[in-house]
Amino acid sequence: MKQAIVVRTDVKMGKGKLAAQVAHASLAAAEEAARRPDWYSEWKEGGQAKIVLKVSSEDELQGLYQTARAERLPAALIRDRGLTQLEPGTVTCLGIGPAPEDKIDSVTGRLKLL
Amino acid sequence: MKQAIVVRTDVKMGKGKLAAQVAHASLAAAEEAARRPDWYSEWKEGGQAKIVLKVSSEDELQGLYQTARAERLPAALIRDRGLTQLEPGTVTCLGIGPAPEDKIDSVTGRLKLL
Repeated sequence: MKQAIVVRTDVKMGKGKLAAQVAHASLAAAEEAARRPDWYSEWKEGGQAKIVLKVSSEDELQGLYQTARAERLPAALIRDRGLTQLEPGTVTCLGIGPAPEDKIDSVTGRLKLL
Repeated sequence: MKQAIVVRTDVKMGKGKLAAQVAHASLAAAEEAARRPDWYSEWKEGGQAKIVLKVSSEDELQGLYQTARAERLPAALIRDRGLTQLEPGTVTCLGIGPAPEDKIDSVTGRLKLL
């Protein structure tokens, strides 16, 4: 089991801001996995493996989100409230999983690590 | 309500690795908050505010962890499994909260943003 978090590199964020957005996506996608408690438990017990990947546009992120949903994977798209560095409503990242590694890879396998 | 994640800057990590560790701390501390479901619910509904802060040594991080525990705040210290960039067992970061903002600030208020 693993979780993938995909980040937009075309949105400029400091590394603290970026880390907070990734954490937000991780938690939101993990909550989506409540429908699959077997996946969630196995992931937690196995050390909650996570990978952080990158895309360079919102279109790519939206496309991955639609694919993940179509594959019935837990997925959560994160919008920033825009109180600090970004415009309100800016989509920053996407959490997918926890889910079996092959299912995650079928959606995100071609992406590069951040 | 807010959550603070405190990161060691004396441990060198790429930004993807750093973000994954912060997400790990966020989720682990949020699970610790299961004992205070009122805090957790209010934090979630309010947009799960998070700040990412920094310290420059493990001693500082351990001190903050002890203080948070003494104040009965949800807290989780994260050790990396060391499969990639770090030595196994390296303490990388600390999640505190969600908890009321003043309680978080009493422990972390003097720290700088990452």
